[in-house]
Amino acid sequence: MSNFAVLGYGVVGSGVVELFYKNRESIEHKAGDKMDIKYILDIREFPDSPYKDKFTKSIDDILNDGDIKAVAECMGGVEPAFTFVKACLEKGISVSTSNKELVAEKGAELLEIAKEKNCNFFFEASVGGAIPIIRPLHKCLAANDITGVAGILNGTTNFILTKMIGDGMKFDDALKLAQDLGYAEKNPAADIEGHDACRKICIISSLVYGRHVYPKNVYTKGITDIKLEDVQIAAKWGGAIKLIARVARLENGKILPFVMPMIVPYDNLISHVDDVFNAVMVCGDGIDKTMFYGRGAGKLPTASAVLGDVIDSVKHDRTVFSQMWEPSENNDFVEDWKKFEAHMYYRVSCSDYYGVGEKIQKAVSDMTNGDDRIDIIETGDKSELCFVTPSMSVYESESFSEKIEGFGGKVVSTIPVLM
Amino acid sequence: MSNFAVLGYGVVGSGVVELFYKNRESIEHKAGDKMDIKYILDIREFPDSPYKDKFTKSIDDILNDGDIKAVAECMGGVEPAFTFVKACLEKGISVSTSNKELVAEKGAELLEIAKEKNCNFFFEASVGGAIPIIRPLHKCLAANDITGVAGILNGTTNFILTKMIGDGMKFDDALKLAQDLGYAEKNPAADIEGHDACRKICIISSLVYGRHVYPKNVYTKGITDIKLEDVQIAAKWGGAIKLIARVARLENGKILPFVMPMIVPYDNLISHVDDVFNAVMVCGDGIDKTMFYGRGAGKLPTASAVLGDVIDSVKHDRTVFSQMWEPSENNDFVEDWKKFEAHMYYRVSCSDYYGVGEKIQKAVSDMTNGDDRIDIIETGDKSELCFVTPSMSVYESESFSEKIEGFGGKVVSTIPVLM
Repeated sequence: MSNFAVLGYGVVGSGVVELFYKNRESIEHKAGDKMDIKYILDIREFPDSPYKDKFTKSIDDILNDGDIKAVAECMGGVEPAFTFVKACLEKGISVSTSNKELVAEKGAELLEIAKEKNCNFFFEASVGGAIPIIRPLHKCLAANDITGVAGILNGTTNFILTKMIGDGMKFDDALKLAQDLGYAEKNPAADIEGHDACRKICIISSLVYGRHVYPKNVYTKGITDIKLEDVQIAAKWGGAIKLIARVARLENGKILPFVMPMIVPYDNLISHVDDVFNAVMVCGDGIDKTMFYGRGAGKLPTASAVLGDVIDSVKHDRTVFSQMWEPSENNDFVEDWKKFEAHMYYRVSCSDYYGVGEKIQKAVSDMTNGDDRIDIIETGDKSELCFVTPSMSVYESESFSEKIEGFGGKVVSTIPVLM
Repeated sequence: MSNFAVLGYGVVGSGVVELFYKNRESIEHKAGDKMDIKYILDIREFPDSPYKDKFTKSIDDILNDGDIKAVAECMGGVEPAFTFVKACLEKGISVSTSNKELVAEKGAELLEIAKEKNCNFFFEASVGGAIPIIRPLHKCLAANDITGVAGILNGTTNFILTKMIGDGMKFDDALKLAQDLGYAEKNPAADIEGHDACRKICIISSLVYGRHVYPKNVYTKGITDIKLEDVQIAAKWGGAIKLIARVARLENGKILPFVMPMIVPYDNLISHVDDVFNAVMVCGDGIDKTMFYGRGAGKLPTASAVLGDVIDSVKHDRTVFSQMWEPSENNDFVEDWKKFEAHMYYRVSCSDYYGVGEKIQKAVSDMTNGDDRIDIIETGDKSELCFVTPSMSVYESESFSEKIEGFGGKVVSTIPVLM
């Protein structure tokens, strides 16, 4: 018999309990052992719960029981989750977590303790909810040199952008709808300003490139500035604006992680990932590219990922070394994000459409030794010039914007294109 | 040091050798052990190969070495692969294979031997090439009750259909292009008649539902009858014709696997999976739905999957029980495919467009107690009536087709819609 405990009986924790008892028989078959939930930790009272006898307010009950093989941590936030998880791992109890803040801030330290104590710290549920991505990255794709990962890692912002794209809603209206439907919090900052996606790309970057990447070192821009006009002009050009979290390894050996809105061309499958769904595209030298898609959040989808990890904890009591990364305080292997190069979408307000257009065209021709031109998007509105540039770095784009202002244009929007 | 052997030095086998030596350092890191390829088995001579000292023509060299921890089987076909793989497993040597024929025909038997000998028979590469699907299904999604799996499991046919959809090519021309590009064999039957996809859905069905499903018991229809006209009319309605391999569990406990062309509505991500790419959508009670996408074939993509399994073999020397299924000779748990229910696309040739349309509309109204109607697709051509019916079984569709003939219409095409 393998007993486990659930920390936190909120949305995800209660989902873990529900899904476990619903599919207990097949879960036990897959784990190769009888299983049960012995404790549920929560500071609140649940007198009417069918599981009321399992509730405890003290982590010590779990730590001192001696018969707990695994713990599912679904509390969220760094503390007290960190203290509790650390204590479990130090007792040699494997922990599976859905807590992205915890992994993004303390992953390296907790993995190190798990290694010392020969148990596991699993975190499949911390990125992409139901989507299997952590295990495929370090197992199925283990033979690959991973050159980059890019995707949609936040469902709330994807829902908002989908409503802007598909229904022509303005950002504020789409946000309000997301809040009404329960997809966005009352204070939606963590989602719409990109911090949630940032934590997730930090976890992926750390796992893939082997050193802990901290959220504070990753350029993060949300979707609050995205205008309906740009969404519609991007569609004319042939792409969808999505909040993209991305990391790539550069030729100099550094990595370049970021979160920002990008235009995704329609021939990239990510552009068709809509509503609250998430997707992660992985590029490697063996696979070329492979994508994982599914619900990035929600009660049962996240619980599914946590329980998958718990089952693995029960089956394998040895540390999974391939899921380790090194601590790295200064993150000096993270490249300056402004060196990122991409085609850039521009919307330029101007009184002299053809005159400014000609000057911009000439400037681009000069920058590329006559090799390249801008790709003008015909909108029918001659008060604004919209176009996509050849590939340039963010630094180059900044000085290009200055040139445009010099030509008498006013740069309204710039959005990089995901290629 | 963990030595392994590669059986077969064709496209996939040579890819395994290439990818292993390219990424050896990181592969060894992930395996937690030094690794090398000690033997490559092939009946042919490779005197100019840098690995010429590793070649052998005799499986006995590998079986009797005593120092081989894992084998990558990349020969293809049932024999002699089956005899060789069986002999390896009986010696307790774990085998990872890319051979879908072998797994579809002999999976249950080989898994049973692996269990007896406490080693592993892995087959991630046998379905979906580079796409991680086997391990996610039995590990990451282990907490789910899987209600169905559907996808595009053959790259050659998807390339042909993409060319018909995107470039307006006729089937024969698209097939010729696929052959010229090396995507289709000179004798393309296994691909275009659906047998390749059938083997893969058999493997998925066996793994998900726990009993061996044989290809001969799975209804399989290829794409040779697909007309460019239907592709174009489907696009007008809002969907793409794809060769879909699907299995679902029915309320009576039986399963319903099949391979056939279906119209996939554009709001289903599968409709946007183009060229030689594959994708597998999995539905479960926890995850709702999740999709895996990538290259379904090719040298390095398939090698990536084989090597991922080899690395796991080296790391875990215990049998993975969750990847087992039971033998089942008669397949009486496979439901009659004609009980499958779907909306049906019809193209009906008729001299009296409005008269026949009215009769069909009335027949559908009678079948659904006045609740439902056909969804007529306006093509501008009144010599053919094109529409999508309410949901009906294949049996019902057959008698509905007879009725249409009675009304004076000639049924040119029927294609079910994937919902």
